[in-house]
Amino acid sequence: MAGSELTNLRSPRVKAARRLTKRAFRERDRLFLAEGPQAVREALARGDVVTELFVTGDAEVRHAELLDAARDSGVPVLRASGEVMSELAQTVTPQGVLAVCRFLTSRLDEVRDPRLVAVLAHVRDPGNAGTVLRTADAAGADAVVFTDASVDAYNGKCVRASAGSLFHLPVVTGLSAADAVRTLKDAGLRILAADGTGKTSLDEAPLAEPTAWIFGNEAWGLPEDLLRLADDVVRVPIYGQAESLNLATAAAVCLYASARSHRGL
Amino acid sequence: MAGSELTNLRSPRVKAARRLTKRAFRERDRLFLAEGPQAVREALARGDVVTELFVTGDAEVRHAELLDAARDSGVPVLRASGEVMSELAQTVTPQGVLAVCRFLTSRLDEVRDPRLVAVLAHVRDPGNAGTVLRTADAAGADAVVFTDASVDAYNGKCVRASAGSLFHLPVVTGLSAADAVRTLKDAGLRILAADGTGKTSLDEAPLAEPTAWIFGNEAWGLPEDLLRLADDVVRVPIYGQAESLNLATAAAVCLYASARSHRGL
Repeated sequence: MAGSELTNLRSPRVKAARRLTKRAFRERDRLFLAEGPQAVREALARGDVVTELFVTGDAEVRHAELLDAARDSGVPVLRASGEVMSELAQTVTPQGVLAVCRFLTSRLDEVRDPRLVAVLAHVRDPGNAGTVLRTADAAGADAVVFTDASVDAYNGKCVRASAGSLFHLPVVTGLSAADAVRTLKDAGLRILAADGTGKTSLDEAPLAEPTAWIFGNEAWGLPEDLLRLADDVVRVPIYGQAESLNLATAAAVCLYASARSHRGL
Repeated sequence: MAGSELTNLRSPRVKAARRLTKRAFRERDRLFLAEGPQAVREALARGDVVTELFVTGDAEVRHAELLDAARDSGVPVLRASGEVMSELAQTVTPQGVLAVCRFLTSRLDEVRDPRLVAVLAHVRDPGNAGTVLRTADAAGADAVVFTDASVDAYNGKCVRASAGSLFHLPVVTGLSAADAVRTLKDAGLRILAADGTGKTSLDEAPLAEPTAWIFGNEAWGLPEDLLRLADDVVRVPIYGQAESLNLATAAAVCLYASARSHRGL
């Protein structure tokens, strides 16, 4: 444990971490912040991801196992005041542990034998994006793609909503939806665009093959050019009077339908 | 159209509406607020629900059809300044139309031949609750129960997240989960508690019968006594490494599994 507590918001270590709350600096430094014991645990489990760990005095006692794990991996641990932690964590009630992490760069063409992939195209709300990532993980997806028109995968709200899943499966960033679709087609996946305007109902869609799902914008769905790139446009059937489903909800129904079908259910 | 514009935050009409942002006053007056054109349209479509409509000058032009509908139903329309609307709407960017609505009292024992019911027990986040309501509507549910340990169905955030679904199907409030379960069993429904600790996987659960799903707290799920009241405790299978699913996501997967099964799919 580093002896003295960081209390000065202007100290270089704090400022270097603080600027990672902004996307431009995350991309320059290729680093991001993961807050809370669950995210920190999963980040440490990845071995080569965490570059330093901030911890408050309280959390040092409460999460001693995380500090042990950090020390075992040679990760520097910095004790921070409550004020410094609040400044970095960007949550109303910070949980006292926060890791600075290296970008998790996965290449889509290096994912082996993918059978289920989620592509986030034009998803703008970081909470929605993180929830889809978590759901894709739960449904056993092999990768999640954040296209360059979607929210940043390393946005603090997205990291939190993913509940650790960001560290579980390959997350691919920085390519266009068209490039992602091309790579996925080359890998033999069927491309299904999820859109309320789809002619094919999810109940009738053939899902047994390896599939990549494309999910669009919360308000306006997917643009024409992306719909045309897909092998089929599939809608989640609305049996009641609702106009549509929430994006993360629709994604959950689609991804689990594929997961079930891949298991012969 | 009422001629003069309400600009004073302390005028009696504004104060009477403003206090409906608090649960205690909603329950005393048995009235709530629904903001935005979609919610207002659905509320007006119910005929006997809206008691008055606030509209800004801008929105009066943009949503003329809503004002016509209000006038046709004899609903008083009040023109409000942007400041008054902001005060009432509780959103960052109010959409300029806001209805004062009567409570939508449905009795669970008056729902006819229910085949799919969602029970929100201990759901505390209004956004989650509204999303489950919207999903239940989409999945063709016959009713949604907000037990007295859950968030208020008429909370502004819940109304917004429901995206109009609050007005589409019977929403039952003010009874305990135990009472709801008793009534639903009497109506011949199978009671399934959705919980990550369930022994039965959703993939194996028999879902063809009429079913009521109980959904629990975001963080800690369902209490023991409620798990015991259920005919079965069902978990959404986790095929990847995620620890759990988000509550609204899990509810979507369960409700759509039932909807599909009820249609012989």
